[in-house]
Order: sequence, then structure tokens, then C-alpha cells
Amino acid sequence: GTRDYSPKQMAIRERVFTAIINCFKRHGAEVIDTPVFELKETLTGKYGEDSKLIYDLKDQGGELLSLRYDLTVPFARYLAMNKITNIKRYHIAKVYRRDNPATTRGRYREFYQCDFDIAGQFDPMIPDAECLKIVHEILSDLQLGDFLIKVNDRRILDGMFAVCGVPDSKFRTICSSVDKLDKVPWEEVKNEMVGEKGLSPEAADRIGEYVQLHGGLDLIEQLLQDPKLSQNKLAKEGLGDMKLLFEYLTLFGITGKISFDLSLARGLDYYTGVIYEAVLLQQQNDHVEDPVSVGSVAGGGRYDGLVGMFDPKGRKVPCVGVSIGIERIFSILEQRVEASEEKIRTTETQVLVASAQKKLLEERLRLISELWDAGIKAEILYKKNPKLLNQLQYCEETGIPLVAIVGEQELKDGVVKLRDVATREEVNIRRENLIEEIRMRTSQL
Amino acid sequence: GTRDYSPKQMAIRERVFTAIINCFKRHGAEVIDTPVFELKETLTGKYGEDSKLIYDLKDQGGELLSLRYDLTVPFARYLAMNKITNIKRYHIAKVYRRDNPATTRGRYREFYQCDFDIAGQFDPMIPDAECLKIVHEILSDLQLGDFLIKVNDRRILDGMFAVCGVPDSKFRTICSSVDKLDKVPWEEVKNEMVGEKGLSPEAADRIGEYVQLHGGLDLIEQLLQDPKLSQNKLAKEGLGDMKLLFEYLTLFGITGKISFDLSLARGLDYYTGVIYEAVLLQQQNDHVEDPVSVGSVAGGGRYDGLVGMFDPKGRKVPCVGVSIGIERIFSILEQRVEASEEKIRTTETQVLVASAQKKLLEERLRLISELWDAGIKAEILYKKNPKLLNQLQYCEETGIPLVAIVGEQELKDGVVKLRDVATREEVNIRRENLIEEIRMRTSQL
Repeated sequence: GTRDYSPKQMAIRERVFTAIINCFKRHGAEVIDTPVFELKETLTGKYGEDSKLIYDLKDQGGELLSLRYDLTVPFARYLAMNKITNIKRYHIAKVYRRDNPATTRGRYREFYQCDFDIAGQFDPMIPDAECLKIVHEILSDLQLGDFLIKVNDRRILDGMFAVCGVPDSKFRTICSSVDKLDKVPWEEVKNEMVGEKGLSPEAADRIGEYVQLHGGLDLIEQLLQDPKLSQNKLAKEGLGDMKLLFEYLTLFGITGKISFDLSLARGLDYYTGVIYEAVLLQQQNDHVEDPVSVGSVAGGGRYDGLVGMFDPKGRKVPCVGVSIGIERIFSILEQRVEASEEKIRTTETQVLVASAQKKLLEERLRLISELWDAGIKAEILYKKNPKLLNQLQYCEETGIPLVAIVGEQELKDGVVKLRDVATREEVNIRRENLIEEIRMRTSQL
Repeated sequence: GTRDYSPKQMAIRERVFTAIINCFKRHGAEVIDTPVFELKETLTGKYGEDSKLIYDLKDQGGELLSLRYDLTVPFARYLAMNKITNIKRYHIAKVYRRDNPATTRGRYREFYQCDFDIAGQFDPMIPDAECLKIVHEILSDLQLGDFLIKVNDRRILDGMFAVCGVPDSKFRTICSSVDKLDKVPWEEVKNEMVGEKGLSPEAADRIGEYVQLHGGLDLIEQLLQDPKLSQNKLAKEGLGDMKLLFEYLTLFGITGKISFDLSLARGLDYYTGVIYEAVLLQQQNDHVEDPVSVGSVAGGGRYDGLVGMFDPKGRKVPCVGVSIGIERIFSILEQRVEASEEKIRTTETQVLVASAQKKLLEERLRLISELWDAGIKAEILYKKNPKLLNQLQYCEETGIPLVAIVGEQELKDGVVKLRDVATREEVNIRRENLIEEIRMRTSQL
């Protein structure tokens, strides 16, 4: 359920992280870090039915600790502990879930989350719209194929449950049934609601009608006119904010990939307002023979009550955020790299310092030391007398573009023979000009 | 015993990481990653007396797991598991120790290690010398003040114990007593050897004479002539390699900061050859009123047997590596930043999109969306009608250098007013030239 990352996987991973971090920085986010474990009590009661998936540490004396389950709860704890009422931060780190891993679909027990959150008391839906813009930018940037961002609001869901006749006490459990609609058909979900959870079939059917709906501003307007829903205070608030959100998303020019979807529920307890989830659609990429069936690659929402749960006086800090689930993104990109036979370099070495004859280790060490001190990325083979052929082969295998060859004649002439690995061209360069020449030749790499 | 990192601390941390990663990449290293926990049995018997500091996970069904104690043992497990006999890699990640934290000296229960290792069968001391060159480059680069890298060899220590009359069975435990010499005086260490560990006082005194010695090539030559030590096979091998090492370090031009020191022992069980440790010397920096007493900031050595312990057939892969202990480095740099009142930016935002009048939120959103899509790092205040003064203050506080102001007149004229926060100069820029202008003005940042 866990995995090592090989140098090649790390190279792909770095590309993805770079795209995501660039986006977070483009939106002015600071970065924080928190410990991998939290007090067990910090995590208790935050994740609903998923709490059973939390990893605990052994009681070896001292506090009871658990591995973090996500980055949101530690963030809320951090805000409360440091009395921060206003921050825009990102956090990229591993989280832990005792799940049944489906490693083929990129699901592991240890996996990365990339979170961006905005905390603070602001005018409605402006930060929320920015979170969706961020998801849109990242998924476009990574060129993962077509995607859709589903949006809903907990208040609309709760209002819908109320007008459908779900008792208050059943809101959360019916909500987790609805959450399964992206994986199982309505009939099964209905059976669960009625059979396991004791909802009346009529109430279930009424829910069934609503959760089929998805659309844009038109659907929002329609529901604002809905005779039952429009009478519910919560639903009305939620629909009003949803309308505002879509207005902002229109200004951002991204409504084409956004769908207001009444079947989106999201399992976590702490959401209080808008919620969203991005899914990749069927891969269009012809290179990939077996398109991976990937589900959600990002999700998030508004959680205005969570920070208050950690504050001794219950002072609330409204928050909205998004989490990019990059393991699935890795899986897709890894598979794409395999299929395309693209050669991925795992080092950035610019030049190999080589020798053409024996007994030149000292000269190689002297030269490479000069290069390192000048900031050139350089390697040597760790042999006293390596064969020139082996040295050239090493460059071919690892993608090093240049070889600086020292030999007896070159030493006498005060030059180094610089070889271009791709073209096999060799030129003698005066020793004092070597660093400049290497810099020039590798500057476009 | 653990800590959160605030945005300001993260900014300092990023600087340190960048310097270290640049150095590792300059030396042609690939990067790998391993899970935060390992099978408990993987860690068993690798850390000598320190094994009691390992964090275990609670047995919730499934395998027994422990949090990693260092990055070296997971690396060796990774090599054996993937049958890799040849790699140069770095790994930067957190490790966990149930220690009594001395947080003032930068010691925590969760802390980062930055490891660089070279695995493979190579000619003697070439990779070992490169590891020391790396420590030298990093500590010089970070400008932490004066430092010293102490070097010794497990074989010289074991040979010394043998000629001093220490029984074979006591080598490891006497070795951990010697390891304490950097913290407690010789008399105390001798008492421990004789009183607790049952060594004869004469043997202890003979050790006492050796462990006082430190120097360079001269000392190596002297010990190679030492009538007792030179008769011991292990010591002779170790001294021979030490001589070779110093020859290579001379070619690298770094012997000035390297000391062959017979009192250096290092606690971990797995070392088999050269060992080293870098210490910062008394701070020369006048800005710091209370110089932190810092000990070791880097350490490592050769461990030729560790990979074989994880291979079913015991196949060995010789390894040598170094670990940079950056928490202490952070402590020093943090303290230096505090003392110097240097203002550290925690974001990279280039421009704030602001408005001079009310009712311009839509225009701000439209403009910032254009900037984001062009890759400009931009922020807005999340208010419908923020005051211009508040917007300018936000720039002052967070160090944003430019403000793009939209107002009714500017909209009519098709321009944006670009304000330089530092000089307060304002110029109208045609909307279609704005992105280019912002890029130009912030390119040197």
C-alpha cells in the first residue's frame, strides 16, 4: 500500500509539483508545513465514517498520536493555535489512510496532497471562485485531457433533504449515500437509503429527481424558482451564492468546464458551503492504449466551522480551499511516458570529466573540482583508469551532453578536448575558457 | 518535540534546501523517495543503543510498522529490493526519533535530513572524497561561519581498540563511549569505560593517548610508523585509505578545513570504513548576540555491509554517504534573520490588482484573470469595494512591488495605472502592453 519513487518517477513527479507550485505562487500563496503526526484528539470527529482509516502511533509513553489524514485539519489546528485569522497558504505533503489501496488506479496508503486554502472573513464567493480558477489552471497546464469541475453547496443539499422530507438527524448519513452516486447507479443508492438507513421510499424518490440535475446559470435560476426549494432558507442562501459564483467564473472565462451538479455531496463532515470536485473525462490521447479509469483528481470546498473547533473560545475563521490529488495524475503521466518511449533524464549533469589515457585520475579530480567550484554540474567515473569508451557510454546512457577529455597532449598544450556527445564533434578549448564554453553550450538546456 | 513551520520559516528553509539541492545536482545525483514508515523488522538491529528511540505504529491489523529513523536504512532496503548495484542519489525528507528534544539547539522529534549517497563497487576513496567535497561546498555556500570536518575510519578505531587490549566483544560499546568525547571530558568517558563497561584502566589509558591525536597527512604518516598500530591489519588498511583520501582532498583544495581526528567514533552500527562529521565553530558573526552552541551539522561515512543485510543472498553493495542535518542550520539562520531585522518576503506576488473607486470588482476580476493566464503572479483583496489606502498598505506589508489600478477614467481610456510601491510613481500603461511592462519591471526580482 506504499511505494518507493524511483529516480524516473521522481523526475515526472517534479514536473507535476513544479506546475502546481507555480500556480499556487501565481495566486500569491505563502507556504507552511506541519508535522506528519498530530494529537489523536485533533483528528477525532472530523472525518465522519472515514475515521476508521486513521493510522495511530503505538502508545510508547507520552501523547497519543495519529498520522495526518489530510492537510485541512492540521491547517485549521495551526490557525487556531497561532490565532491567525487571515492567510492564503499552500501545503504539499504526504497524508496517510488505512484504506484498501487500488494501486493500479493510483491509490496508496501514503500519498501526496497539494492543498491551497484561503482563510479569512471576506466578501462572498470571491475566494471560492479563485479556488476553482486554480483547479482550472492546474488541470489545463498539466495537459491531462478533458476535465470537468462539478460544483454544489452543502446548504443546497441540506435544503434539498429538508424539502424532500429527510429528518434532520439523517442529513449526514443520507449525504454519504448521495456521495456514492459517481460510482454506483441510483437504484443501489436508493436501496441503501431506504433499506439500510430507513428513509421512506417517497423521500428517496424526491431526492432522486433533484440529484439528476446538473447545468449552469440556467439551472440555478430554475431552482431559485422551484416552489419547494425556494421556500427553504438554507437552499436559497446556497443558490444565491452559487449564482454569484457563476458570475465570477464567467468573468474568469472558465464556466465551460464547470457543472453545477446536485449529485455532488463529498464525504467529509467539515464542509459548510460550496463544494467541488474535478474529474478527468475519458482520455482522448491516442498514445495510451489502456486508458486509465481515473476519478476525482481535485476536490475541496468551504469549511467555516473547523477552525472554531480548535479555538478554546470557539472563534470561527471562515476557510475555503482545494486539494489536488496528484497520485492519479502521476499514474496517468507515468503511463503516458512509458507509452511514448520518451527518454526522461534523471540528472542535470552538463559535462563528464574523462581521460583518454591511464594515470590521469589526479588531473580529472583537479579539473572537476574547478568545474564544481564554478557551479558547473559535472561527474567523473569513480575508477582510476576508466576506458574512454566506457566514459562515452555513460554519457549516452544518462544523457550528459558534453565530455571534457584530458590527455597528456592536452595537458601539455593547456587545453581540454570538449566533445559533443550527440554530434561527436571534438574541439580543443583553452583551459581558462572551458567554464565559459560549457556554460554557453548548455545554457539552452 | 515537533513544530509547525510558519511562512517566514518556510522562506528561510527554502533558501537552505535550494543551496543543498543545487549542490547535490551539481554532483550528478538522482533523487528518490521512500515511505515515511518501514516494516519494523527493517529497522531492527541497525542503530545500536539508539534503537529505543524508534517510533512504532499501533498494531491495527496488518504489518508492524515503524517511522523511519534515518534515510540510510530505507535507502539500503530500496537498493536490495530493487537489485540496484550502482546509483548516486539524494533524498530530502523528515525522520523521527523519540528523543528528548532540545528545541533551542534545533533538535526536534521530527526533523529533516538531506542525504547524498554513492552506491557501487568503485576504486577506493574516490566517492568518499566527493562526499567530503560536498559537505565543504554546502557549508561554504550557506555562509554559516567557520567549520571543521573531522574524519576517522572504523577500521582505525577497531585496530586501535585491538592494540590497546580491548576484547573484541567490547568494540562496539567502547566505540559508543568514545563517541561521547565531543560532549564530555576524557575522565568521564574513561570512568564509563572502566566502571560501567568493565574495561581495564590500562587499556582505557592507552585509548586515551590515541584519541587525543588529530591532524593531517603528517599524523597519518606518523601512525603508519606507530610500532603497535602498524602491526594491526585493519588499522593499516584504514590508515592507507586515509592517506589516499587526504591526497584526493588536497587535489580538491579543501584540506584546510579537514581534520583526521582519532576521537571521532559516530554511534551508528552500520559504518565499516571512513566516517566524518562536520561541526560549526564559534560564531564570528557580530550581529548575533547569543551565539547558539551548535554541534554537528553533517555526518556520514562508509557502510559496505548494510545493503547485504536486506538481500536474500547477502549480496553486498558498497556505499558511502553524507547526511546534512539542517535543523541546526535553520536555527542559526533564523536567529540571524531575527537579529538583522532583514525583511523576508513570504510570497512572490508581482502585482496587486486594485481599484480606485467602488463597484469595480468585476473589472478587477477580469484583469487579474488575464494576468494569471499570462503567468503573472497577482493578487486582489477579497472585498467588493476595498479602499485604495488598504490596497496600498497590503502591498507595503507583503512586499508586493507593483499595483495595477483600474478606475473609471482608465477603463474609458483603455489604460491601467501602474504604480511603483517603493517610489510611488504612477504611469498609465495601455492595457495591451501591461503584461509586458510588469514582466520587464519585475524581471530582476
